[in-house]
Amino acid sequence: MIANIRLQMPGCIDFGAGRRSSIIDYIGTSERICLVCDPFLRNRVADDIVPALSDKGAEVVIISDVIPELPVDYIGAVVDTASRHKPDTVIGIGGGSTIDCAKLLAVLVKSSQNTYDVINTGTVGERTVKLVTLPTTAGTGSEVTPIAVVTDDEKKVKKGIVSPCLIPDAAIIDAELTVSMPPHVTAATGVDALTHCIEAYTNRYAHPVVDGFAREGIRLIMNFIERAVNDGADMEARSSMSLGSLYGGLCLGPVNTAAVHALAYPVGGEFKVPHGVANSVLLPYVMQFNLSSCGDKYVSLARFLGTEHGGEELAQDFIHRVREISRRCGIPVTLKELGITESDIPWMANAAVGVTRLMNNNPRPVTEDDAERIYRNAYRGILDDIHGDGKK
Amino acid sequence: MIANIRLQMPGCIDFGAGRRSSIIDYIGTSERICLVCDPFLRNRVADDIVPALSDKGAEVVIISDVIPELPVDYIGAVVDTASRHKPDTVIGIGGGSTIDCAKLLAVLVKSSQNTYDVINTGTVGERTVKLVTLPTTAGTGSEVTPIAVVTDDEKKVKKGIVSPCLIPDAAIIDAELTVSMPPHVTAATGVDALTHCIEAYTNRYAHPVVDGFAREGIRLIMNFIERAVNDGADMEARSSMSLGSLYGGLCLGPVNTAAVHALAYPVGGEFKVPHGVANSVLLPYVMQFNLSSCGDKYVSLARFLGTEHGGEELAQDFIHRVREISRRCGIPVTLKELGITESDIPWMANAAVGVTRLMNNNPRPVTEDDAERIYRNAYRGILDDIHGDGKK
Repeated sequence: MIANIRLQMPGCIDFGAGRRSSIIDYIGTSERICLVCDPFLRNRVADDIVPALSDKGAEVVIISDVIPELPVDYIGAVVDTASRHKPDTVIGIGGGSTIDCAKLLAVLVKSSQNTYDVINTGTVGERTVKLVTLPTTAGTGSEVTPIAVVTDDEKKVKKGIVSPCLIPDAAIIDAELTVSMPPHVTAATGVDALTHCIEAYTNRYAHPVVDGFAREGIRLIMNFIERAVNDGADMEARSSMSLGSLYGGLCLGPVNTAAVHALAYPVGGEFKVPHGVANSVLLPYVMQFNLSSCGDKYVSLARFLGTEHGGEELAQDFIHRVREISRRCGIPVTLKELGITESDIPWMANAAVGVTRLMNNNPRPVTEDDAERIYRNAYRGILDDIHGDGKK
Repeated sequence: MIANIRLQMPGCIDFGAGRRSSIIDYIGTSERICLVCDPFLRNRVADDIVPALSDKGAEVVIISDVIPELPVDYIGAVVDTASRHKPDTVIGIGGGSTIDCAKLLAVLVKSSQNTYDVINTGTVGERTVKLVTLPTTAGTGSEVTPIAVVTDDEKKVKKGIVSPCLIPDAAIIDAELTVSMPPHVTAATGVDALTHCIEAYTNRYAHPVVDGFAREGIRLIMNFIERAVNDGADMEARSSMSLGSLYGGLCLGPVNTAAVHALAYPVGGEFKVPHGVANSVLLPYVMQFNLSSCGDKYVSLARFLGTEHGGEELAQDFIHRVREISRRCGIPVTLKELGITESDIPWMANAAVGVTRLMNNNPRPVTEDDAERIYRNAYRGILDDIHGDGKK
């Protein structure tokens, strides 16, 4: 029997190289626009997109001082600044933090709620301004999700905000916007998208509709990430990565992530390790831990991708292939390489198991001891702990 | 390189047995609702759904005299009646004609345009009332598409109306609503959905994003249609058919159908053959005609479904499997069985090639002579014209 599912996504997803020019189709009769963009995009956006919006009669204010990983206080400051402009449309152009900032701005700018009020699931009241997103990385999938992630500096941990009000009205996925991404960002954001797909596919709440997105995303990313890292101008690779990332994003709303993301939150929150890198490092070790609960799914993914191995080796082989992708793309593959010490592991494990919103999705239950062991394996680079219980 | 594509669909698709109760989540603060439903559903809807809407404070008017295949004049009459109620929301509960009627009502009820003004693509001005759809068949996919089809009685042909304004705000796909569908309707509407998926997958404008929907739809429908026809209460089969039909609908916006639908329009328009039956009859003969242009795609579908055959036989085998499904589900497999005579074929061919909106999508160009030959094969039940050119 097919389980119930509520698919919520932008009413329009415009995919293709050069499609950013279609932005004017989505602003309607907007008069005042807040455009949130990455600092290094400011000039390009000001030259390229702002004139098109102005020609349609809209007054545009650019916010381009986005702080990565979004400290809660920063969001408050942006909302204060933007509210003076009284925008009827918010556009977000950038990576995950920038798009999340635009999404939160859109729900808070005309609201009496502040960021702390909306942390958690289903606490956003409403959104009355239009929201359009254009990703410049191929990773977060935030352009289509009901999720924004902020950093609570006091508690040194990332917090998720989940609401259908955060889903943009339109998302424009133009791979040309990703061409200038440097190799290390291409690599880390790409493996982040791969993580979304793998955590959705092996999720406790996996669903056949989402499985289709996840499988396609895994295929595209695993086949094209190296090409995109090695030659940023390879448009076939860039388009494929953008599409893979979009699929990852479409997984996040209805099914969402699991232990990799929960364990990555303290790594990102405390050590300011970029979200994609933290996920990339932890992914193979969590897969190893989950092997006893979802080995059959790894086998089916390995078969879907094509493999020379057969039988029981397939699942283990698939985990190694995932780590190998990070290694070949120049991403660190241990926590040690990130400058984390073994003495940090206990508090990180404690913080991670507190992210129950995501931990509950994991195919295998994760105790605090388990979290410590996963972190320790990720610290030492141990990937042969077949049963995830310390016994080989 | 991945081609550009604009995916437009309802911002919310709510899938699952029993989900019709979620309708109250989608009407917001509506005060006046027009509910368009199939005549035989009137009592059930009045008992079940209307009280829930009334409890939320909405005044509901039911329109339940929908004429199948939607004559243009009928739409005008419905709009006149409904406009007196000044609805802020239109809900459509029924098969394709009923949902198309609700969609057209939603765009015309507060507009100065009439049905003739909007026939064709992109001619609808705007939609200012909310629109929610609940299909009671598993076939048309109309619950998620930007398309409505009407019958132009003067010209004896069906006409398509295509606009993003016709895409509902929310679609609720509750397979429990399909349980009372009799076997012959289950069969014909099911093969209609199969046709949507096959014509999208082999379309000249096929796209990898839509291929994923199409493949899954083909798999679900071919695996479950017989069970749904033979035991209408088999909820696993019903859910699978509803999901397959949804996938078919998701194909229709960005890629749409091709020669099967174009050739079916005169059959439906003149002989009042239900849309699903007309498509079912023509599907294998058009597939046979297209074999020389997209045999590789039939092979990949046959492989995806699993088959005992190999090599070149696969494509031909797949076409036979498709016709066999109709036969086993009790659908006529020739035009003769529909009461059409051979003398009708020339004018039907002429009318069909005039449906350029769909004919242009076909993988192999269809001349008027080709259309006559396809109709003649469909009349006589000939399926061994391997090259579609009269030579075996």
